[in-house]
Amino acid sequence: MIKKGFSKLSRDEKISWLSEYTKDKNLEDFLSTFTIPEPDLQKKFESFSENTLSNYHLPWGIVPNVLVDGHLFHVPVVIEESSVVAAASKAASFWAQRGGFKTLFISTLKKGQLHFLFNGNGEKLKTQWPEIASELRKGTSHISQNMEKRGGGITKIELKKIEGLPAEYFQLDLEAETIDSMGANFINSLLEEMGRILPDIIKARAGSGETDIIMAILSNHTPDSIVKMKIETPVSQLTWSKYMQPERFARRMQWAADIAWHDTGRAVTHNKGIYNGVDAVVLSTGNDFRAVEAAGHAYAARDGQYRALSRVKPGKDIFSLQIEIPLALGTVGGLTKLHPLAEKTLKILGEPDARTLMKIAAAVGLANNFAAMASLVTTGIQQGHMKMHLQNILNSLNINPEYHSRVEEYFRDKTVSVSAVRQFVSTLQ
Amino acid sequence: MIKKGFSKLSRDEKISWLSEYTKDKNLEDFLSTFTIPEPDLQKKFESFSENTLSNYHLPWGIVPNVLVDGHLFHVPVVIEESSVVAAASKAASFWAQRGGFKTLFISTLKKGQLHFLFNGNGEKLKTQWPEIASELRKGTSHISQNMEKRGGGITKIELKKIEGLPAEYFQLDLEAETIDSMGANFINSLLEEMGRILPDIIKARAGSGETDIIMAILSNHTPDSIVKMKIETPVSQLTWSKYMQPERFARRMQWAADIAWHDTGRAVTHNKGIYNGVDAVVLSTGNDFRAVEAAGHAYAARDGQYRALSRVKPGKDIFSLQIEIPLALGTVGGLTKLHPLAEKTLKILGEPDARTLMKIAAAVGLANNFAAMASLVTTGIQQGHMKMHLQNILNSLNINPEYHSRVEEYFRDKTVSVSAVRQFVSTLQ
Repeated sequence: MIKKGFSKLSRDEKISWLSEYTKDKNLEDFLSTFTIPEPDLQKKFESFSENTLSNYHLPWGIVPNVLVDGHLFHVPVVIEESSVVAAASKAASFWAQRGGFKTLFISTLKKGQLHFLFNGNGEKLKTQWPEIASELRKGTSHISQNMEKRGGGITKIELKKIEGLPAEYFQLDLEAETIDSMGANFINSLLEEMGRILPDIIKARAGSGETDIIMAILSNHTPDSIVKMKIETPVSQLTWSKYMQPERFARRMQWAADIAWHDTGRAVTHNKGIYNGVDAVVLSTGNDFRAVEAAGHAYAARDGQYRALSRVKPGKDIFSLQIEIPLALGTVGGLTKLHPLAEKTLKILGEPDARTLMKIAAAVGLANNFAAMASLVTTGIQQGHMKMHLQNILNSLNINPEYHSRVEEYFRDKTVSVSAVRQFVSTLQ
Repeated sequence: MIKKGFSKLSRDEKISWLSEYTKDKNLEDFLSTFTIPEPDLQKKFESFSENTLSNYHLPWGIVPNVLVDGHLFHVPVVIEESSVVAAASKAASFWAQRGGFKTLFISTLKKGQLHFLFNGNGEKLKTQWPEIASELRKGTSHISQNMEKRGGGITKIELKKIEGLPAEYFQLDLEAETIDSMGANFINSLLEEMGRILPDIIKARAGSGETDIIMAILSNHTPDSIVKMKIETPVSQLTWSKYMQPERFARRMQWAADIAWHDTGRAVTHNKGIYNGVDAVVLSTGNDFRAVEAAGHAYAARDGQYRALSRVKPGKDIFSLQIEIPLALGTVGGLTKLHPLAEKTLKILGEPDARTLMKIAAAVGLANNFAAMASLVTTGIQQGHMKMHLQNILNSLNINPEYHSRVEEYFRDKTVSVSAVRQFVSTLQ
């Protein structure tokens, strides 16, 4: 039975309806376990979204010792996957003693698009475009003036045709510098206003024909908001593993990176490892990980094949791992100042500007990438992963600490799962 | 100054060090605001990751009325972006009255890779591969037997060459059915064991030459773990907007979808909108959104151009929006049963198997996709978005409710930001 008017119920009414529907009498008590006693603070979390009934907790922790361009950061991160923080921390400390993460290039231009149809003289539209663009700038100056005061604003308004779409389709391609904001609101407001005034401007400049605005919205494809960064050291200093000579380790890292460059099946997981770190910073600072993920993976496919976002530079004596990753982050706007822990994260990071935050996120991503590859080419990932997973299960099942070492011993060479642990523990009791 | 031994400190010691380092005397009190009073429960959250000092709260809410293949779900979701839940809920109810979300196709095969070098006779390795694969199956049967009992197990072990990599490189491509688990532990355990036994098997079967295992790991590229799903109705029933005739609305939706198919700049944001919904379910059920995002966006680029994951089928009388999205989700393993709210989410969904959960996630993604496109081609997204954003800010600044309507009035045609609201409110007081 469709439930009508759910969103109009109060929180208590929603819970009581759901409790009845699911025949779960303890639902209200259960959900209250995870809410904050102070009503105003709890209300704030509820207001971030709609139909909110409780809070979903993710661990907020610290990756210490991330050295970026000579500045040391202890980076608050939010991630639920075990061993990501441990791996990033180990790699960050290792590289902090070898010069740290070094930015090679950074750019911060954002994009937006106004999609429209024009059934008049397309050639005339093209030749008149410089004037049209200039009028669009003037007509939206009330929106961009504040951004301009902060050093940003519109950098380009281009007219584009897209292959595969009918002749009447045109795209206004907007580029903007949005300084410390991610830019979504600024760009969307600009584009929607441009959509309102464009038909009259075209009529005046490009003559007869109808202009029909289809839609106006920022693009999360941000190939010009990008960080290039490297970690680099003489191969002799690559003493990561106690059991593997630096030269052999470096050769195997080269293989791991090359495989991820040429093989999409490997590239996807290679990049997933990068985003384990990147998203942990994106989340902790109140940024939008869906936007960051979409931008990055589309960029990974920019030459027609989906590839790794990082590469090991070939070379016998110097080990150099470089990442090239689009990042559109903000340190103002969105949830950055609304979510108390995001605000605290930014304080702990020393109130970075957007560029600095982009570098920190890229560095934690690269740290995770290095650690994941290093783990794969040495001990394999299961050893560490299973250990962590087993600890989680032992904690969650409240297993008597007396039994822990026997469980660990037993599962040294077995696949860990809740049911397998439960079963084995039952044999001990 | 690099901080050594951070991970070895207790939680209290970590906080006290960080409090000193950041000169933030209230850090401990602040972080405790977000922890759960019950120590055992709090410890569980801390154990999910490392160096955990507090909990990061994301709203846990409900998207009601998601009708999937005739079954009605009220779907718990976790998302911090305002208006995602409202949009999904509106679209879900609309489609529940028009037949709901219908699965066209589903598959659940997962992948893994063993990357290795072999400097012997590659041709012989190829011809001997069926026997080698069979021995690998036998040699890992102790790992796969439980999965086989549940109806899963290895479905394929292929030998692959990858263009661009040296001749000595080979890839063992593993395919497996992992039933209700996401499969990472199962596949990684299998592959690592295969890596241990493969060199001897090759020596026996393919003669002289060295086998060097580079790495073994699952692949998040899952083009064979996929959901195809549609929503469909006669155009006359497409009464979404009060202000736009169904025929015009359908034509504009067709444009929006076609643009996202042909233009990468638009496709990235189109797909981001899909993942707003998908990830909200991935998170609420304790699955791994980095894995899901990486798989999906790589799949979006499968033909060499990054494209939309959903399309509107051309047609004058029938409106049909279809999505095709890879999803590797689990309903057992990982955090699914360890995170109390993930466990509760699965209970509320009726303890779905992995296939059902994949369908639910795809449906919420498609609901968000439909709502986002619909909003773009009618009123534009800023109107709704800014309204939500303004409410968040009013709440977070604890603005006197008396002023709310005047603030809303003032910002009807202005860009909303914390500082702009603060400034305007100061003129009211």
